[in-house]
Amino acid sequence: MNLISSPLLTDLYQLIMLHTYFARDMRETAVFELFVRKLPAQRNFLMAAGLEQALDFLEGLRFGPDELAWVEGCALFPPQFVRELASLRFTGDVFAMPEGTIFFANEPILRVVASMPQAQLVESRLINLMHFETVVAAKAARSVLAAPGKLLVDFGLRRAHGAEAGLLAARAAYIAGYGGTATVLANALFGIPVFGTMAHSFVQAHDDEAQAFADFARAFPKGTVFLVDTYDTEAAVRKVAALAPALQSEGIAIKGVRLDSGDLAALAGSARRILDDAGLREATIFASGNLDEYRLRELMTLGAPIDGFGIGTSLVTAADAPFLDAVYKLQEYAGTPRRKLSPGKATWPGRKQVYRRYRSDSCFDQDVVTVEGDSRPGEALLVPVMRNGTRLEPKETLETIRRRAAAQLARLPPGLAGLDPAAEPYPVEIAPALRDLAGQMDRGVSAG
Amino acid sequence: MNLISSPLLTDLYQLIMLHTYFARDMRETAVFELFVRKLPAQRNFLMAAGLEQALDFLEGLRFGPDELAWVEGCALFPPQFVRELASLRFTGDVFAMPEGTIFFANEPILRVVASMPQAQLVESRLINLMHFETVVAAKAARSVLAAPGKLLVDFGLRRAHGAEAGLLAARAAYIAGYGGTATVLANALFGIPVFGTMAHSFVQAHDDEAQAFADFARAFPKGTVFLVDTYDTEAAVRKVAALAPALQSEGIAIKGVRLDSGDLAALAGSARRILDDAGLREATIFASGNLDEYRLRELMTLGAPIDGFGIGTSLVTAADAPFLDAVYKLQEYAGTPRRKLSPGKATWPGRKQVYRRYRSDSCFDQDVVTVEGDSRPGEALLVPVMRNGTRLEPKETLETIRRRAAAQLARLPPGLAGLDPAAEPYPVEIAPALRDLAGQMDRGVSAG
Repeated sequence: MNLISSPLLTDLYQLIMLHTYFARDMRETAVFELFVRKLPAQRNFLMAAGLEQALDFLEGLRFGPDELAWVEGCALFPPQFVRELASLRFTGDVFAMPEGTIFFANEPILRVVASMPQAQLVESRLINLMHFETVVAAKAARSVLAAPGKLLVDFGLRRAHGAEAGLLAARAAYIAGYGGTATVLANALFGIPVFGTMAHSFVQAHDDEAQAFADFARAFPKGTVFLVDTYDTEAAVRKVAALAPALQSEGIAIKGVRLDSGDLAALAGSARRILDDAGLREATIFASGNLDEYRLRELMTLGAPIDGFGIGTSLVTAADAPFLDAVYKLQEYAGTPRRKLSPGKATWPGRKQVYRRYRSDSCFDQDVVTVEGDSRPGEALLVPVMRNGTRLEPKETLETIRRRAAAQLARLPPGLAGLDPAAEPYPVEIAPALRDLAGQMDRGVSAG
Repeated sequence: MNLISSPLLTDLYQLIMLHTYFARDMRETAVFELFVRKLPAQRNFLMAAGLEQALDFLEGLRFGPDELAWVEGCALFPPQFVRELASLRFTGDVFAMPEGTIFFANEPILRVVASMPQAQLVESRLINLMHFETVVAAKAARSVLAAPGKLLVDFGLRRAHGAEAGLLAARAAYIAGYGGTATVLANALFGIPVFGTMAHSFVQAHDDEAQAFADFARAFPKGTVFLVDTYDTEAAVRKVAALAPALQSEGIAIKGVRLDSGDLAALAGSARRILDDAGLREATIFASGNLDEYRLRELMTLGAPIDGFGIGTSLVTAADAPFLDAVYKLQEYAGTPRRKLSPGKATWPGRKQVYRRYRSDSCFDQDVVTVEGDSRPGEALLVPVMRNGTRLEPKETLETIRRRAAAQLARLPPGLAGLDPAAEPYPVEIAPALRDLAGQMDRGVSAG
């Protein structure tokens, strides 16, 4: 069973529901929407990501022999259910905000319209994919805003939550404006630019640090960025400077140094002076080590002469807000709008659309969430992406998505673009048509 | 390329280092250890997990045709490197703390002894696997301690960080004492007991909630746990009670109800009364909805009549401490101990062992970290698990690991077993022999 694409990567209650829908012949059209109920206090906006993986999942959905054997063997379901599963495919329609779109609470980023069993089954994995990439894209966008013009590189694989998290974090960060990743497989699978320097262990394995630098440069002349903090950073930068003439005479140019610990602003300042004094003005300074967007802002404010940043754990775990209140809720069944009223979890019913209006300076002005068909001024953010289980357009390139994300970030109202909570949240209006629908339903439920 | 087992699931600098080690013929034996430098403020202890997946990874390590083609095509490395990679296997030795072992800062949980290129290459994925499972096992153990005797079920797949995170979180939680998971594939792959009830959408898709319950019970008589919070929890429990006689006459027993929102303690109390009044004393009450170990402690203190808990997002993202300062550091190369001195990141050198002493009541008394060979009183926690790239013992069953974890939790000093930070951290002594070695090396480094 393929860990990534198996339909058994779901909650058991989805299979129980599926069986029940089949048994009761509840196969009418259901409409589910995926949205975030509330933004974390540390986020002024979110950025949609993960749609590509979600559509791959829907297109590839099928129960293989191993999965059917599990269902048969689990002793929960009758044989008829196994036969139903064997022929199950996703044949529904999907509407979504394109990846890289900035969005806010209560705005659906995905709408699935399919027969009830299909639409139900896919819930767990759709959230699993789109929630995580959105978590990371929103986190990454903050670093992009905090350090404009700097090269940002995802260094997070080792402390990402498993293999897929490492890969999808690289993708989401690249969408949001990172320059690349250290994760090789993210290049092999997604074409994301990949960056790498050298390891502390290489320096430690030598008795002499300068010798380690020389050996490294000669063995890998394409990648002469030297890791200088294994013992004493300034001393190591001086060793790099001293080594430069010999390497240059061999045709090897020094690309730069990487700082990975200590007072990065001070060390970057002295490293810059040492490099400049040695005539190495082209050599860059790259910094890493427990960085996040707050540290980036601090280093930018101090004017630290750092050209790029490697950001790992805080990015890939989105450490300050590692999850969103993301849900996938039934909005309509058999033509009738549906609503959940659980305390603190009530949902707006029906198929919805989000309209965004812009100010004269092209910044976002206001969003309106309304029922589909209630046309409002502004741009409709949800667009059709899949019909009858088939993508409507070829896959977007990551470059297209990156350009969209950059354009979106450029149009954020200034109050939302900072790292601190905005004085006022972005205005998202629930349109009268949607309030009316909810009110009608509540009266219906109370009476029922 | 298999996303889970590909050797390209690594950082580019590992390949750069590998190439450099091959080019400089640096193939002597390296010793790396994996440890956590510092515990998060919210953790009094950690629990080792993920060794099984780490050993699987080491045993299966090889570059397939697609991976070799990527290396050849990336234009960074010479053809000789591709040939080296084609024949690369992991042939080293591994020592580890068995899964389920409780450990503390600066205590290695894994030691890899292998030729330098092999030992280096595996760093990223070894941390990626063992860090995450350890993060979740440590988090899950806190719920187990907070709600002794209760059934705890992992509900986290949808907001786990990708597919592998969902699966490995289920495994780590089960090791720590959870009773099971909602994730079907975790049962199919690991044999973890799987639990599931019903969906809000099923209730919403019916015009009448009581009808939804009746339909569900008749279609799935084995799983009559009713989700009662879609509209009004107490009203729904009364509907379940009213339905009971009819279902019982059909031979269907009501197993219980699930609360998923609202004031769980109050609702559990009234649900219990309604069920008892209807003669449904055997029906259980299961609660879920934004739970974590603090909420569990609160509900236990209130004496809420809840039999089991579904815990999702907070568990699988370890939301209050989503990462550990876990590292994999070179301790020895070519027979000589090695040490990194970066500010705040200095490591204790050499091959190490951890000895644990117990009090007369069998609680943990003190740990000592020392150099291998410096025998100390107490139990040696690191044991050999792999020699020449082959496991020394068959895989442990999850039941064996669970029993170990339970025994470890039972031996925690009471001050460490609470949810709040311990007044005093558990004592971990760095032995004189280890301090001496570090001192000798520092004098050597200063002199060099």
